Amino acid sequence: MAQGILYGIGLGPGDPELMTLKAHRLIGACPVVAYPARPGGPSMARAIAAGSIAPGVEEIRIDVPMTPERAPAQAAYDAGAERVAVALGAGRDVALLCEGDPLLYGSFMYLHARLAPRFHCEVVPGVSSVAACAALAGRPVAARNEVFTVLPAPLPGPALRAAVAAADSLAILKIGRHLARVRDLLTQMGLAERAVYVERAGHPDGRALPLSEAPEAAPYFSMILLRKGGDPWLG
Amino acid sequence: MAQGILYGIGLGPGDPELMTLKAHRLIGACPVVAYPARPGGPSMARAIAAGSIAPGVEEIRIDVPMTPERAPAQAAYDAGAERVAVALGAGRDVALLCEGDPLLYGSFMYLHARLAPRFHCEVVPGVSSVAACAALAGRPVAARNEVFTVLPAPLPGPALRAAVAAADSLAILKIGRHLARVRDLLTQMGLAERAVYVERAGHPDGRALPLSEAPEAAPYFSMILLRKGGDPWLG
Repeated sequence: MAQGILYGIGLGPGDPELMTLKAHRLIGACPVVAYPARPGGPSMARAIAAGSIAPGVEEIRIDVPMTPERAPAQAAYDAGAERVAVALGAGRDVALLCEGDPLLYGSFMYLHARLAPRFHCEVVPGVSSVAACAALAGRPVAARNEVFTVLPAPLPGPALRAAVAAADSLAILKIGRHLARVRDLLTQMGLAERAVYVERAGHPDGRALPLSEAPEAAPYFSMILLRKGGDPWLG
Repeated sequence: MAQGILYGIGLGPGDPELMTLKAHRLIGACPVVAYPARPGGPSMARAIAAGSIAPGVEEIRIDVPMTPERAPAQAAYDAGAERVAVALGAGRDVALLCEGDPLLYGSFMYLHARLAPRFHCEVVPGVSSVAACAALAGRPVAARNEVFTVLPAPLPGPALRAAVAAADSLAILKIGRHLARVRDLLTQMGLAERAVYVERAGHPDGRALPLSEAPEAAPYFSMILLRKGGDPWLG
């Protein structure tokens, strides 16, 4: 019997209309849909894709604990991958739902690493949160031969400073409780006035503000965009 | 009379199915569609969107000369922006078609800079060529707190080397005639074996190869992906 195909499907940043036509079609066509979730909470991936899921399909919910240690999450991915493998082994295609783009800071890669050696796997790229934040802010990310760097705010100060200094344009992710630290760094480097703070891009309540007007309590999925050259808003 | 709205619409990397649902809806709903093209050649943007354009809409084709000097292109954007402004001023919404994501190395920003100060503008983000290349290669772009840099291959050698050294993961764009130069640099840095060459991602004839197997004549829209840590293919 032929094995099923694993589709790693990017859903985009949150607005279901920012799914691709291909994502919408494949989610509706697969007899099995799998997605990560926080234990006890809703699955954001499932919520984005809800309108595309056909009634009565099998759903594999993979609860991934958010702990400082990596072992509990690794065990959850092991167990989730095995459940997906059973469906694939039975010849059923599986749509694995991924927020944003599957390969950019996503949890998809942990399942992909466990399943791609054994099964045919196709990745459907999605709109990234970086693209959604830039769209909401209405400002260019990079032009011509500019160097553009994406970096996570939890990095130590010296690593952050080096990366900010080296690039022409930056997207600093996972701002959350690191907001004050990053703002101080950009202020010291004389770059804070050009920076834009964006939260919840791709959701109805998303907003973009000058960094100086950012709220003290930033959500985890907020971002700072900074392009050093050109007009900061118009390119 | 109310002015029209300018929609800057990302079309994704080439496969019409990698357009978002929102892009498809807006292109079909706007009475005017505008797009850049090479003089005398087809418009790749229009070709991607062809199945979404309603019959009988007004089309504004903006021929942009590909010259080493920037003045002819600037004049073309000036003239194109004025034609779009006439439609917006007459109260007609305009769908401006953009390959990939509008704000990442796109020509959209040159029209946006000319029109956003005068008209309401909304950007619809799209799937980037970087995401499409990673999907075709089936390999992670970045995980956890890795620093990811996008850089154009035409940069001078020292700038390329510094950017490659500073990041954990890289997408090197616009490879074309710079292939040998970039490959030599990555070989010197001991990184060539981990690098993947990708061309025409998002098109039916797209392919991903180890860099050592890349063709000598690489197309302009080819890319090298390189992630220094983790399994090079599986993350």
